Amino acid sequence: MPSSPTITTMPTHAAQPDDSPALQALYRGFEQERLIPLWTQIGDLMPMHPQSKASACLWRWKRLNELAAEAGRLVPVGRGGERRAIALANPTLGGRPYATPTLWAAIQYLMPGENAPEHRHTQHAFRFVLEGEGVWTVVNGDAVRMSRGDFLPQGGWNWHAHHNAATRPMAWIDGLDIPFAYTTESQFFEMGRATLSADEMGTPQLSRSERLWAHPGLRPVSQTNDSATTPLLAYRWVDTDRALNEQLALEAEGHAVTLSPGHAAVRYSNPTNGRDVLPTVRCEMHRIRSGAASVERREVGSSVYQVFDGQGSVQVGAERWQVEKGDMFVVPSWQPFTARCGADAPALDLFRFSDTPIFEAVHAYRVQLGAAQA
Amino acid sequence: MPSSPTITTMPTHAAQPDDSPALQALYRGFEQERLIPLWTQIGDLMPMHPQSKASACLWRWKRLNELAAEAGRLVPVGRGGERRAIALANPTLGGRPYATPTLWAAIQYLMPGENAPEHRHTQHAFRFVLEGEGVWTVVNGDAVRMSRGDFLPQGGWNWHAHHNAATRPMAWIDGLDIPFAYTTESQFFEMGRATLSADEMGTPQLSRSERLWAHPGLRPVSQTNDSATTPLLAYRWVDTDRALNEQLALEAEGHAVTLSPGHAAVRYSNPTNGRDVLPTVRCEMHRIRSGAASVERREVGSSVYQVFDGQGSVQVGAERWQVEKGDMFVVPSWQPFTARCGADAPALDLFRFSDTPIFEAVHAYRVQLGAAQA
Amino acid sequence: MPSSPTITTMPTHAAQPDDSPALQALYRGFEQERLIPLWTQIGDLMPMHPQSKASACLWRWKRLNELAAEAGRLVPVGRGGERRAIALANPTLGGRPYATPTLWAAIQYLMPGENAPEHRHTQHAFRFVLEGEGVWTVVNGDAVRMSRGDFLPQGGWNWHAHHNAATRPMAWIDGLDIPFAYTTESQFFEMGRATLSADEMGTPQLSRSERLWAHPGLRPVSQTNDSATTPLLAYRWVDTDRALNEQLALEAEGHAVTLSPGHAAVRYSNPTNGRDVLPTVRCEMHRIRSGAASVERREVGSSVYQVFDGQGSVQVGAERWQVEKGDMFVVPSWQPFTARCGADAPALDLFRFSDTPIFEAVHAYRVQLGAAQA
Amino acid sequence: MPSSPTITTMPTHAAQPDDSPALQALYRGFEQERLIPLWTQIGDLMPMHPQSKASACLWRWKRLNELAAEAGRLVPVGRGGERRAIALANPTLGGRPYATPTLWAAIQYLMPGENAPEHRHTQHAFRFVLEGEGVWTVVNGDAVRMSRGDFLPQGGWNWHAHHNAATRPMAWIDGLDIPFAYTTESQFFEMGRATLSADEMGTPQLSRSERLWAHPGLRPVSQTNDSATTPLLAYRWVDTDRALNEQLALEAEGHAVTLSPGHAAVRYSNPTNGRDVLPTVRCEMHRIRSGAASVERREVGSSVYQVFDGQGSVQVGAERWQVEKGDMFVVPSWQPFTARCGADAPALDLFRFSDTPIFEAVHAYRVQLGAAQA
Repeated sequence: MPSSPTITTMPTHAAQPDDSPALQALYRGFEQERLIPLWTQIGDLMPMHPQSKASACLWRWKRLNELAAEAGRLVPVGRGGERRAIALANPTLGGRPYATPTLWAAIQYLMPGENAPEHRHTQHAFRFVLEGEGVWTVVNGDAVRMSRGDFLPQGGWNWHAHHNAATRPMAWIDGLDIPFAYTTESQFFEMGRATLSADEMGTPQLSRSERLWAHPGLRPVSQTNDSATTPLLAYRWVDTDRALNEQLALEAEGHAVTLSPGHAAVRYSNPTNGRDVLPTVRCEMHRIRSGAASVERREVGSSVYQVFDGQGSVQVGAERWQVEKGDMFVVPSWQPFTARCGADAPALDLFRFSDTPIFEAVHAYRVQLGAAQA
Repeated sequence: MPSSPTITTMPTHAAQPDDSPALQALYRGFEQERLIPLWTQIGDLMPMHPQSKASACLWRWKRLNELAAEAGRLVPVGRGGERRAIALANPTLGGRPYATPTLWAAIQYLMPGENAPEHRHTQHAFRFVLEGEGVWTVVNGDAVRMSRGDFLPQGGWNWHAHHNAATRPMAWIDGLDIPFAYTTESQFFEMGRATLSADEMGTPQLSRSERLWAHPGLRPVSQTNDSATTPLLAYRWVDTDRALNEQLALEAEGHAVTLSPGHAAVRYSNPTNGRDVLPTVRCEMHRIRSGAASVERREVGSSVYQVFDGQGSVQVGAERWQVEKGDMFVVPSWQPFTARCGADAPALDLFRFSDTPIFEAVHAYRVQLGAAQA
Repeated sequence: MPSSPTITTMPTHAAQPDDSPALQALYRGFEQERLIPLWTQIGDLMPMHPQSKASACLWRWKRLNELAAEAGRLVPVGRGGERRAIALANPTLGGRPYATPTLWAAIQYLMPGENAPEHRHTQHAFRFVLEGEGVWTVVNGDAVRMSRGDFLPQGGWNWHAHHNAATRPMAWIDGLDIPFAYTTESQFFEMGRATLSADEMGTPQLSRSERLWAHPGLRPVSQTNDSATTPLLAYRWVDTDRALNEQLALEAEGHAVTLSPGHAAVRYSNPTNGRDVLPTVRCEMHRIRSGAASVERREVGSSVYQVFDGQGSVQVGAERWQVEKGDMFVVPSWQPFTARCGADAPALDLFRFSDTPIFEAVHAYRVQLGAAQA
Repeated sequence: MPSSPTITTMPTHAAQPDDSPALQALYRGFEQERLIPLWTQIGDLMPMHPQSKASACLWRWKRLNELAAEAGRLVPVGRGGERRAIALANPTLGGRPYATPTLWAAIQYLMPGENAPEHRHTQHAFRFVLEGEGVWTVVNGDAVRMSRGDFLPQGGWNWHAHHNAATRPMAWIDGLDIPFAYTTESQFFEMGRATLSADEMGTPQLSRSERLWAHPGLRPVSQTNDSATTPLLAYRWVDTDRALNEQLALEAEGHAVTLSPGHAAVRYSNPTNGRDVLPTVRCEMHRIRSGAASVERREVGSSVYQVFDGQGSVQVGAERWQVEKGDMFVVPSWQPFTARCGADAPALDLFRFSDTPIFEAVHAYRVQLGAAQA
């Protein structure tokens, strides 16, 4: 349903022409011709720096999990609805299921024995497992175990389904670039097969992708092309945890390998090119040791965090929260962010995903480290 | 002002859970916790292929020009409003000054002797001149003449101002990635100097950028780095016209250098890397000779066209228009497009700009050529 | 000592001008002016396909090791000679210590307690350990253990020294691009410190580089730039072995992940970009299972192989050898190569290095798979 | 004919083991096994910086031209010999037709009505025209005029022939990467057709490649892929000359666009990617105005220069020459180079080609500007 724009002489930082019947007639002419002048809009359209429409916002895991469990009882999973996924809806983004203007973040929930049907889409996705086990994601026929702390990227346009092979429900989070694909209008979707083969419904400890690709610095000579999305479908917690511990140990031995004192971080990367696992989404795990804090950071683009373990406090713009395991929060574009591990926790582990690769790809990324001057 | 989402059991292609008091309670719980389930949204969020919010839409140059001239009489140009630019507002994009979800297109108008003040912004811009002359754009102190048929790219974060050195008003079109920068929240803006130096206000035939860079296949050895935006600030009509004529002449001699019979096209490119002039905007000039038509094309991302010369008809999705000099129209994402030159015109020249580089950068581009099968 | 060229009317596939006193006078004139005509040289200079000056050639490990041990008794290691390294000298490469026209391959030998002094050079290097242990390579102060089956790349211009901390001698092979750097004349060399610190002379199980980089698909966020050479200084046999076994197991399960039936292979890669560990040298480990053979392969550029384990036969051009542990051989440019595992060995493991990245970098690489048509 | 290496206890900067019968026996063992120790070779193999085998060397155009003309009388052009090309043979490169270790430079000469037969090879080539006209090079059927000052690149594996359509002989220079391809053993060659079609033997003013590609900053939309070699087959003197003049004029107006005061330079570039015209050869034109000199430059890799116009002096290492139109000289790797325009000439124009892209591609390039400290 088309709607004509309505041009008003808005209060704005921009100087405005004197009002007059002629000006009003001009504005009505603009409206009839579906035109809007820059001078009434420039303050909003072209701010001095990003003024995010999104809010710094926190979701508590306890409530997410309770509501997801209730959905498990009431809402079936099947073709059409496709997934029992419940998305964070940033309250200042127009009632849309968007965590940020570009990122989707949801809790997904699967009951014992349930299957989420096979489909594929161009939106890039990943899953991250806060706790539990028993679900396998089947990607192009390769069954990938999902366990605590695992990160499972899912490049666009790969067939995938999920099945819960255990006797308990399981929850995890999904991250996608759904809002970005939606606003730029680039999305494709296709339904897959109704049922998978018995082989695909197996529960192997390691996926084929890991057996082929999860060897440090080694790649199969049969697959030497660059791939825009990672061919490695699971990044296991045991590796991530060890990598973070080693950074902190190396720091303690005097080597500058952390982001700042007490703040270790690894980026999940595509072994075919060393770049981000997905072309539009960056994924990282951060560990801040007891008593330490991250350097204040302000950057173009938005992030979503989930506390994987530990306790601490985070500050996003003017907001400050005590956070604990499972809690999720959003850092909007250009809002300063700091995280601090409480003295009573051994470390604060933060899983983070962001839209940074989009800005890097179009040369629009900026970052500012350290507290801004007053 | 935050607003809670409201979840309704919408009629959709997706199967929905049976309604019940428990389900309603669950949905109220979602709303309280700022959550939205996928299963009520998936039909809209994840369509089978892009379903653009934008409309195929046409603007007549005659009316654009009349309204711009009236604005020239009523609306001063100066600091704050910055530019006398009037933007195409696609009627199905929520009353925003967006030609498409990612692109801004405007007519800009400058009266004799007027100056548009210096500023810079990270949004990438260009100007294209349908007719007229007398305005110079001053980019980082380099005065660039604007004349009929010229294309003037303006990479982000370069200082620029305009001044009309002639005795007549002049109009041209501006294209920018304002909506893309706005929805992804990456924009910076800075005011420049109040007045330029006498030297910068000069009216040279050729800018310094052209004297340094407009030599085919030659680059200064003093500047061998890659630049994300083109250092060449003017692409003159005489070159564009000759390149198009040569393509058609070569085609007539039997060489396959056109896009399809009778359809020649050149892309404005960055001489430092051969890529698009701007990281987010592709700009091209197309020429369809008398009686010929383009191959139907459907692609991810949106385009804005302006008829530079000639007459013909264009079809965008279900819309079909007769077009002539100066008319502007929009091709939304994934809508089929065909252009045809009338038999009574020697050729139809179409200036086009699109957001394609964004999709190529994130590996999301798709194109389909030829009429779709039924 | 300059020498004038001598031009003779050579028998060649090329048509030659009729001999005459005038022609002889012309040729003398060429010689005086330091000129050589193409028409007497073209058959050699511009062959139909590469005609390598190098020979297909085999070196037996038994003899290499005996001679290296004798050198251990007679030749001290120290500043000036720098390394007790003994190079393969392809007999048709003019008495130069070149395994191939671009590659150096040597056995290096270090006695108990010995130290090879610190230096650095732009030539890229690696070490590969056939057997033994007890030596640490110290790279920019990072002590890297060398054990059986380990691959240790050493990008150009890094400081490095070796020390034998054990009670037995140790031998290993070195590979470098010395001939390539020599003929293209791009090499730099610098002596380092006389003695390393006690900390650098330690014998840690894992180097700092491994603790930072040897986690599959994970990279430190503090180091996100691309690096032309790999920051990972050791690729351990346990990982290589497992990766090869998994490829053969996946093949047995029906998945096409090997190069050809029974032929698994991994490439050592740079985790910052997924490319070769060194800009000029490609390094791989191949495993051919019992009874299997590789597909005949002919490619631009040369390779050096060392049998890491097992027994089998290899064919290089017209040469055919039975090979066993430690044997080294050369495959010259464009000579066909096949390897076959004997039926009595469980597998034939072949370490390979080649100059392929050079040709890929300048777009000169070609490969032909399968036996050539007669 | 294989030859065993002969190892002698050479005087060298390297410390050598004490001579003894046992050492001599060891060395004889090395020789039998085709081995050479590093410690007798390291001074030559791994110098502190490049020590070129090539000499700074000058060839006078007058003599080149006289000898080429005499060859025109005595030596026919045809299949087998392929080209009447006479190569610069650097006197310290072993009597080989190499200007430098990587580069071939030759004068080619074609009599009226003569045809050099069609062939193709993977070696990359170009032609540069000092004077004269009348020859067309036919590249994949596209006839390209050769006139004074024109630069004509010829990417590897393109079919090409030459024909002289005039009534006078014509000479020009050819540059190729023949020595590089020879020592790295990557070359392929194929004979072409015996005769070209009448159309291909035409004498158009502009080649098809120019009509398609020689428009500044414009590329055909039908050809948007990156190409490793330039699709533009002629870079005309009128453009090169204007570009150089503009640099000097801009410098005079106060803009820093030259390499150093009075030293302008343009690089011939590939319009599809902004890089060098050929993957292994960089080509540039330098203009030094009356009385000015270039900054002393020392760099990895070698260059060949031809004086296109003017007079001046050049210094290469310890050599210093007065040079004039047509003279050719070589700058070996890492030898300092300076050029100076005489006060009585308006400018010194130097055409230059070098092997720099090879070193850039493998990350081995180094350059040092300004006179070295004593």
